[in-house]
Amino acid sequence: MAETKFDLIILGGGPAGYNAAERAAHGGLKTLVCEERALGGVCLNEGCIPTKTLLYSAKIYDYANHGDKYGVTVEGAKIDHAKVVDRKDKVVKTLVSGVGAKMKGAGVTVANGTAKILGKVAGGFAVECAGVTYEAAKLLICTGSEAIVPPIPGLREAYEAGFVVTNREILDLRTLPKKFVVIGGGVIGLEMASYFNSVGCEVTVIEMLDKIAGPTEKEISSNLEKNYAKKGVKFILGAKVSAVNGKPGSMGVVEYEKDGKTEKVECDLVLVSTGRRARTKGIGLEELGVQMNRGAIVTDETCATSVPGVWAAGDVNGKVMLAHTGYREGEAAVNNMLGKKDRVDYRSIPSVIYTNPEVASVGETLESAQKAGIDAEETTLSLRYSGRYLAENEGGDGFVKIVYGKQHHEILGVHMIGSYASEIIYGAAAMVARCQRVEDVQKIVFPHPTVCEVIREAMFTVH
Amino acid sequence: MAETKFDLIILGGGPAGYNAAERAAHGGLKTLVCEERALGGVCLNEGCIPTKTLLYSAKIYDYANHGDKYGVTVEGAKIDHAKVVDRKDKVVKTLVSGVGAKMKGAGVTVANGTAKILGKVAGGFAVECAGVTYEAAKLLICTGSEAIVPPIPGLREAYEAGFVVTNREILDLRTLPKKFVVIGGGVIGLEMASYFNSVGCEVTVIEMLDKIAGPTEKEISSNLEKNYAKKGVKFILGAKVSAVNGKPGSMGVVEYEKDGKTEKVECDLVLVSTGRRARTKGIGLEELGVQMNRGAIVTDETCATSVPGVWAAGDVNGKVMLAHTGYREGEAAVNNMLGKKDRVDYRSIPSVIYTNPEVASVGETLESAQKAGIDAEETTLSLRYSGRYLAENEGGDGFVKIVYGKQHHEILGVHMIGSYASEIIYGAAAMVARCQRVEDVQKIVFPHPTVCEVIREAMFTVH
Repeated sequence: MAETKFDLIILGGGPAGYNAAERAAHGGLKTLVCEERALGGVCLNEGCIPTKTLLYSAKIYDYANHGDKYGVTVEGAKIDHAKVVDRKDKVVKTLVSGVGAKMKGAGVTVANGTAKILGKVAGGFAVECAGVTYEAAKLLICTGSEAIVPPIPGLREAYEAGFVVTNREILDLRTLPKKFVVIGGGVIGLEMASYFNSVGCEVTVIEMLDKIAGPTEKEISSNLEKNYAKKGVKFILGAKVSAVNGKPGSMGVVEYEKDGKTEKVECDLVLVSTGRRARTKGIGLEELGVQMNRGAIVTDETCATSVPGVWAAGDVNGKVMLAHTGYREGEAAVNNMLGKKDRVDYRSIPSVIYTNPEVASVGETLESAQKAGIDAEETTLSLRYSGRYLAENEGGDGFVKIVYGKQHHEILGVHMIGSYASEIIYGAAAMVARCQRVEDVQKIVFPHPTVCEVIREAMFTVH
Repeated sequence: MAETKFDLIILGGGPAGYNAAERAAHGGLKTLVCEERALGGVCLNEGCIPTKTLLYSAKIYDYANHGDKYGVTVEGAKIDHAKVVDRKDKVVKTLVSGVGAKMKGAGVTVANGTAKILGKVAGGFAVECAGVTYEAAKLLICTGSEAIVPPIPGLREAYEAGFVVTNREILDLRTLPKKFVVIGGGVIGLEMASYFNSVGCEVTVIEMLDKIAGPTEKEISSNLEKNYAKKGVKFILGAKVSAVNGKPGSMGVVEYEKDGKTEKVECDLVLVSTGRRARTKGIGLEELGVQMNRGAIVTDETCATSVPGVWAAGDVNGKVMLAHTGYREGEAAVNNMLGKKDRVDYRSIPSVIYTNPEVASVGETLESAQKAGIDAEETTLSLRYSGRYLAENEGGDGFVKIVYGKQHHEILGVHMIGSYASEIIYGAAAMVARCQRVEDVQKIVFPHPTVCEVIREAMFTVH
C-alpha cells in the first residue's frame, strides 16, 4: 500500500507548488503534491509558456514582413496558426514532463486529483485526494487562480457556447478569428491582442480604465498603446462592456458604454481578460478557519497563514499573481518551515508584458512612491542612446525610467519599454532588492553595445 | 581667436575619450578632445556598432530561412548586402553625430586632427593638434588600438591590394565573397564568420590555438564551435598560416601548417583578425617619459600613468580592450582628477560575442580561478530549464555556468551561451562586482518566463 504520511502536503502543482515541493524535498521534507490537472499549473499549461510560444512565432512572422528595413526581403510569408498551436502543445508537453521528472528526481510524491482538506488531526492535518486520505504536519496551499467571467449580460452564455474564451480556451483555437475583441487591456489581453494583430486579425481592445496595462507606469502604458495603435489595434478606453452576443464561427457583437453612449463592435471571437481570482473554494479551508480577505488567503511576508502549520504561496494569496512571485513565496514558505527565516521582498518583484516592444518594470513609479509619502524623483532616457537599439530598431521610441529617492539616491523603481526589457529587468530587481544607490550602479561595468547599458547611462543624469 | 587653454586635453574621441570628456565637462573641467578621424572611435565607426547592424540583418535573414520550425514559411528570402551596408552607414552616421551633439551639449571643444604631445610646460602640458598648440593641466590618453597585420609572407601585400582586409575595410565591402577565410578565431573573427555564414558564403576559420574565442570558458568555446560547424563553418584549429596570396575579385589562397603538414584553402577574401595593439606611436609620449609595457601605456586601477597629471584609458593601456572598459576607465580617470577616489574593478568586466547563439562572460572561469589559487567550484545548468528558451529555440543546447568560492559561495564568474546572453550578463557583472553569494541571488526574484532565470536556478544546484 502506498504511503499516506508526509511531512508536507502541497495543494496544487503550479509554479508555487512544484517549486516548493522540490525545495522541500531537497531540504529533507517528505513531500506530497496534489494536482487535479497537469503539473505546471496555469503558467505552464495555459499562461506564460504557451503565450510565449505563440508570440515567438508571431515575432518571426513580423520579422519576415518587415525585414526590408534591414535589407531582407521575402515573398509570400505565411504563418500557419494550427502548426503554431501544435508546436505550443509540444513545448508545453516537454515542460510538463520536465516538471514530472523533477518531482520524481527530488523524491516528491504526486497525487492526481482534487485535494480537499478534511481538518486537523493529531500532529497535523488530513487531506483527501483521489479517494485516499493523506496526513502531514504541514500544509502549503498553492491552488492558484482562475479567470473571472464578469456578470455582463450574455457573457456567460457566449462563454459556454465558445464565442467568448478565457486565457485557457484561446490557446487551443486552431482557426483564426477575423475580428477579435479583447475585454480588458491588462497583461493577458495585450499579449493576445499582440499575437492576433501580428497574424493579421482585426483587433479591438476594450478597457474600463482610461489607460491600458493596469498598474504599468503611465508614460510606458501610453507609449505601448501608441505603438499598437500604429500597428492597427483599436483601443476603446474608459468603456464598460454592457452586453455580449454571438456564436462561434459567425459574427456577433460586443456592446459597450462610453461617455454616456452605447456603441458596438462586430467580432467573431471575444477574449475576456478582466482579472483573475484566487481559487479557494471547495478545498476545505473552512475546516481550518484560515483567515481570508475577499476570497484570497491572508499571508504575511513569511507566507504563513493565520493557522500555524498552514502556509500559502502563489496566486491564491491574491497579492501579486505572477508565476515568479509564486516561486519565491513557495521557497520562502519552505525555508520558514525548515527553520531558516525568510521573507519575501514584495518591493522588488519584476513584471513583464511580452508585447513587441516589451514592457518590464520593478518597484515604485513616481506616482506610487509619492502616494506612499516617499520623496522621490525620476529620470527618463531614450533607448536610442544605445547603439544596439538603433542598429536593431528603425524608428524605435523605447525608453527607460528610473525612480529614486531624492535625498539618498536609492533606486526605488525601474521601468522600461523596448527590446530585451524582459531579460534586462532582473538586474534592476536586484538593484531595488539590495537598496542600491544611483552612484553604486555607475561603478558597475555594463557590456557595450547593449540596450541594458541605457540603465547605467540614465544613472548619470541624476545630480 | 579660439581658446587654447584647457583644464583637460583628451587625445582620442573613441568610447574612452568622448565619454570621459562628457563626464569631465559635467564635473566642471574645461575639456578639449582631439580626434583625427570620426568621433566614436573604432567601436562606433568600425567595430561594435557596425558589426551589430550587420549581424541584426543576418539574424532576420536567418529567421526568414528557418521560420518553418515555428510555423512561419516564406518564399525566396533575399538579403541585399549593399543595402545592409548602406543601413550600417546610416546608423553609424546617426551615432557619430549624436556623439558630436553630446560634446557640444556638454560644452566640450573638439579639435579635428592628429594630436601630438609637445611636452611639459608651466602648470601642465602642451599638445599640438591641426596646427594649433593647446595647453592643459591634465592629459588623458585615449588613442585606442589598431589591428595587427602579422608578418606572414604575402599578407602585407595582399592587404594593400585589398584581398586581405581588417575589421575596418570589411565593413565597407559592397559585394559578398564566395569563399571567405578568417585568420584568427577571436571575437571579431567569429562575428564576421557568423555574418558571412548567414548570408551564404563558404566560411573557413583558421586559428593558431586549439580552441576558438580566445579566453572564453572552454566548454562554451567548444559549444560555440559545434553550433557553427553545424551551420557549415569550417574550423581549422592549431594551425599556423604560412602564406597568403591573392588579388581582389578572384580566387587566391591561404596556406597553413597543421600537424607538420602544409595545407591550403582557396578563397576570394581574407579577414585578418589576429589581435590588436595599443596606438602609442607618434603621439609624443616619449617627451613625457610615460612608462610603457610592450607598446602599451602602463596604468594602475585609478588609470594614472607613471607621470603625474597624465592619465590613460581604453585600449591604449592594453588591458581589456573592450569599449565598455574604456568607458569605465575614462570615468575613473576623471573622478580621480576631480578628487573623487575611484578604481576600476577589473574582476567584474563582462564580455560578449554577438554570434548566434550569443556568448557572454564575466569573471573567473574554473580554470583561471584555480590558476589564481582560489578554491573554486562550478555548476552548469542547461538553458532548456527555461520555458522561454524552449519556446524560442528548437534544438537549442545553450547553458550557463557559475563559478563560485567553495567555502563562502561568493560568485566569481558567470559564463553563458544562448539567447539574450548579451543583455543578461550585466546583472551577473553586478553580482561579481558586489561580491554577492549564491545564497544572496537565491533571494532575488527573476521574472518568469525568461532565459535569465536559469542563472537563479543554477544557484540552487550549489549545496
